[in-house]
Amino acid sequence: MRISELSERSGIAVATIKYYLREGLLPAGERTGPNQASYGEDHLRRLRLVRALIEVGGLSVATVGDVITAIDTPDLPLFYLLGVVQDSMAAPAPNAADTERDRAYEIVRAEMERRGWDMRPSPQAIDMLTGVLVRLAQLGYRDWGSTVMPRYFDGVRVIAETDVATALSAGERDDIVDSVVVLTVLGDTALAAIRRIAQAQVSLEQLEDLDSL
Amino acid sequence: MRISELSERSGIAVATIKYYLREGLLPAGERTGPNQASYGEDHLRRLRLVRALIEVGGLSVATVGDVITAIDTPDLPLFYLLGVVQDSMAAPAPNAADTERDRAYEIVRAEMERRGWDMRPSPQAIDMLTGVLVRLAQLGYRDWGSTVMPRYFDGVRVIAETDVATALSAGERDDIVDSVVVLTVLGDTALAAIRRIAQAQVSLEQLEDLDSL
Repeated sequence: MRISELSERSGIAVATIKYYLREGLLPAGERTGPNQASYGEDHLRRLRLVRALIEVGGLSVATVGDVITAIDTPDLPLFYLLGVVQDSMAAPAPNAADTERDRAYEIVRAEMERRGWDMRPSPQAIDMLTGVLVRLAQLGYRDWGSTVMPRYFDGVRVIAETDVATALSAGERDDIVDSVVVLTVLGDTALAAIRRIAQAQVSLEQLEDLDSL
Repeated sequence: MRISELSERSGIAVATIKYYLREGLLPAGERTGPNQASYGEDHLRRLRLVRALIEVGGLSVATVGDVITAIDTPDLPLFYLLGVVQDSMAAPAPNAADTERDRAYEIVRAEMERRGWDMRPSPQAIDMLTGVLVRLAQLGYRDWGSTVMPRYFDGVRVIAETDVATALSAGERDDIVDSVVVLTVLGDTALAAIRRIAQAQVSLEQLEDLDSL
């Protein structure tokens, strides 16, 4: 198909597609004339992925380039590839005094060790969680890591199993990465919404006869 | 205590405390002279809450005023008060065609009905979840609501029970609202981090011998 049809079917402007081509996010089409090229279904799929990485994942064009390079390295294990994608979407951790961070990190480490979970594939996410524990301690919620966090690990395990099964059923590497990005980012918002719904329901059940507080 | 000590113990600048006093977020202290007032432990607790609502909850000063008014209405049921707080922290839903939204809303409604959950206390969160379903459908993940979302409800129920138990154990209304805000907002980030950690662990378990994909 020509670039105009690629634009129509993807919903992405021709100028934007040309920009992605220049930046190497999209492979060149097959030359069909001095100023013309032809594109296939692979280009459409790749375009869809690039848009998901940028618009949904919030990644910079440079980071999208790294992810694309990882996808196109044929002997790169899928597990490592998913690590690259996950890491690229983790939020930076706030600064904190070293002793406070060490204490928080130790709580996370102990919890993961208790469960026999491998810490190597998720350094960024562990950093993010450590940052939350530091912030909670600063706000006076010092026990959260030992009292509440283990229940979070319990509840999230079920969710992660569904996430991974859904992503792996997507088929090819491009589609798997696309679904990891979309389902991770929008899944966060869904999780936040369902948590509020569930909190309201649980409060309702517990407080219906307790309105005297 | 004097305003300088209140500032020292709360870590909030005197100028900021004076601003909160003018805006009515903090009740006036007891007059002890023409230009002096005395403050108590209640002021300290309220100050801590106001800071949590603004810095952690991301609420505007006007919205903080609404929450404070709700707390100070003695016959307002705690359940309703928590509803006000939760609602104030929900993200706005994106625009979408009516039929697409109707379809997404119906999926959420059916799931909640199946569980016997009351929809009335969480209109904003339901709207937020409906928005996610619309966005997923636009990106080609139309089945997510029927295949994946039920597992999210399962996993989140455990987490919400811990959240509510923790909040209710906080004691007074100010402290309960403080903990709802802090634990809801920072809990979202913790949940996102733990989800990435769990996804990595589940991927590792499932892909260790499957690196051929």
